[in-house]
Amino acid sequence: MVGRSSFDRMWEELAPVGRSAATGGYRRFAWTRTDHDLREWFAAEAASRGLTLVLDRAGNQWAWWGEPSARQPGVAIGSHLDSVPDGGAFDGPLGVVSAFAAVDALRQQGVVPARPIGVVNFVDEEGARFGIACAGSRLITGALDADRARGLADAEATSMAEAMRAAGVDPDGLGPDRDALDRIGCFVELHVEQGRGLVELGAPVAVGSQIWPHGRWRIELPGEANHAGTTRLADRRDPMLGYARLILAAREAAERRGSVATMGKVSVAPNGVNAIPSLVTAWLDARGPDAEQVLAVVAELRELADASGGSLLQESWTEATSFDARLAERVGAVLAGAPVLGTGAGHDAGILANAGIPTAMLFVRNPTGVSHSPAEHAELPDCHAGVRALTAVLADLAGPTATGPAAGGPAG
Amino acid sequence: MVGRSSFDRMWEELAPVGRSAATGGYRRFAWTRTDHDLREWFAAEAASRGLTLVLDRAGNQWAWWGEPSARQPGVAIGSHLDSVPDGGAFDGPLGVVSAFAAVDALRQQGVVPARPIGVVNFVDEEGARFGIACAGSRLITGALDADRARGLADAEATSMAEAMRAAGVDPDGLGPDRDALDRIGCFVELHVEQGRGLVELGAPVAVGSQIWPHGRWRIELPGEANHAGTTRLADRRDPMLGYARLILAAREAAERRGSVATMGKVSVAPNGVNAIPSLVTAWLDARGPDAEQVLAVVAELRELADASGGSLLQESWTEATSFDARLAERVGAVLAGAPVLGTGAGHDAGILANAGIPTAMLFVRNPTGVSHSPAEHAELPDCHAGVRALTAVLADLAGPTATGPAAGGPAG
Repeated sequence: MVGRSSFDRMWEELAPVGRSAATGGYRRFAWTRTDHDLREWFAAEAASRGLTLVLDRAGNQWAWWGEPSARQPGVAIGSHLDSVPDGGAFDGPLGVVSAFAAVDALRQQGVVPARPIGVVNFVDEEGARFGIACAGSRLITGALDADRARGLADAEATSMAEAMRAAGVDPDGLGPDRDALDRIGCFVELHVEQGRGLVELGAPVAVGSQIWPHGRWRIELPGEANHAGTTRLADRRDPMLGYARLILAAREAAERRGSVATMGKVSVAPNGVNAIPSLVTAWLDARGPDAEQVLAVVAELRELADASGGSLLQESWTEATSFDARLAERVGAVLAGAPVLGTGAGHDAGILANAGIPTAMLFVRNPTGVSHSPAEHAELPDCHAGVRALTAVLADLAGPTATGPAAGGPAG
Repeated sequence: MVGRSSFDRMWEELAPVGRSAATGGYRRFAWTRTDHDLREWFAAEAASRGLTLVLDRAGNQWAWWGEPSARQPGVAIGSHLDSVPDGGAFDGPLGVVSAFAAVDALRQQGVVPARPIGVVNFVDEEGARFGIACAGSRLITGALDADRARGLADAEATSMAEAMRAAGVDPDGLGPDRDALDRIGCFVELHVEQGRGLVELGAPVAVGSQIWPHGRWRIELPGEANHAGTTRLADRRDPMLGYARLILAAREAAERRGSVATMGKVSVAPNGVNAIPSLVTAWLDARGPDAEQVLAVVAELRELADASGGSLLQESWTEATSFDARLAERVGAVLAGAPVLGTGAGHDAGILANAGIPTAMLFVRNPTGVSHSPAEHAELPDCHAGVRALTAVLADLAGPTATGPAAGGPAG
């Protein structure tokens, strides 16, 4: 069983880190103590394999086997270690652990790669703390402005700059990182599937085709704080009512427009049982196969928010991402017979692809389709199949017999 | 100006305690550090006047002038010092500060009371931390079970028992306190009005007639946590939708039934932008002049909650409270010409009244009617008018010329 033992050991080591005893879910947020523990774990795995640890300007961790450069860029594999609040164990870590396991498998096979191989841990992929998903990859590609990132605040009003500094990483270094990007010839991200596509197809592993266009919006609905017992209904400015109408309208518009819309996060001030709220802040997540329809859903909701004296502001937007055709073809040839799947989830692979780096994704079967939940799961044999697939792809892209594409980027 | 200087000094001293620089509102929650500071302040005010500080079994603070007993019960005045989240400066503290100022005014007038006078600070009136309003008065009257109270948990899962112990008060002492109640011949609570009744009547002070029946209910709506991008709308169990329907139904039912209903507090798990919630917990506050109609609103909402697989559970319920008729008559005679007002707000005075203690309330004009908000306000001249009114009532109920009622309770 290729890579089996090292995969299992790493998986067991990560299992308790950042896990809530109350919910069984993970709370691995960027630049926290838990994140620090995960980054230390990553650094130790790199060191134990003799890989060279490099931090880019956003603090993403790269463990290189060989010395990548603009002339000889490497094959990068990996994902992220952070989670949504009470997320599952697989979303992110499966890709990082599988990447190290693939390196181990390659070495067991005695392969001496012709070009550098890098394992990456992207920081803050979920955006759970500061609200911007894929912050690490967005920063190095310039898709997220450094000043804006530094100023983002978490729920305790701690800025990203303060959080980074507390974690020992200099926030002044944030910004586009051409050197880091030049080291990446191509990027392959393995990820647990977050739907039931592979269950229906009866296969353990798929090759990614595209990422839906997707974005996040913040909705602010101001009201007038007042006493719940003594303020006549007619005298109230209760923003909870506008919020309720938006929740229902988001679902209805998404259904009508073949998209998905979610209002999963809300913050109410003052949030007292006997106080009419002074402010409801809510977030909208909207995605779909067709960007125009997704943005039409958002426009409808913006109109509703405006009409009730509130506002709806874009926090992030990512256009549809089609993965590199030539790289996909090559990966597909290595994994002959593997199905091809699109996804509604955003990934660092999508951010890199939009920055012109040839990227591909592999998805591992998820028996329930559940993700972003403690119930998220993948069977161990499927995880091992994922490692084998990633190893085969890696051997092809970086191996001694591979020529051409990987030298200047596989689809170069 | 009777009581002017001591009122103003006390008001200024309390102004910064527990005030949020961000909102300008107060966060004075039971058994916190801020609450501790307020209790220390109360104890110091009692000591500086030579009053005897007595804690009852719930931790309510009583500052007695004279020695009340079952044979010679006293006249109690006061209110509470805690607040709702981001509440105003007046709701509660106005009654406590006015009570001390009335004692000062009485002494300035050279009145030697024929019976004991007590100033009270009821603990946890707003229930902002543990969810039960008037916890201090409910506990000593037996309206709130001691075991249930000890087990109540705040948002950080700290129980009331733990919070009390951390504040240096023994939670094992909680329970009905007959001795404390026997010391109270009657209770007069002065409070800022929380509506605009006195604005419309053009008067600074009113006498209370009744408190509407009112209660709180907790609603739990379970869902299935899942990824916001990859879960088809048809596959979702999103409890936010049921929550939205409940918000709108609460308003509609309350309007139809001549009541008020408020959904001002909500807690969402996991509360992530890209995660469908696994649980929405919301609270309903419902009140009105007619208990039957209020409970019919609640029944409608319970049906809705049940239908979506959730639950709606009563956290508290207080029947309509009509203040003691004979005491109201006597207070009305002292304050000849003062209007009479009912209120939708619950008060410790209502809890004591329901326990058979003759109680009365005085309301001070609120120019905007806004309460439970940083914008809550009363003009200083109106506050002084309140102190004068309370002083006059106190002189009558406890004064040397008063006989009869106050000895065994003014209303017998």
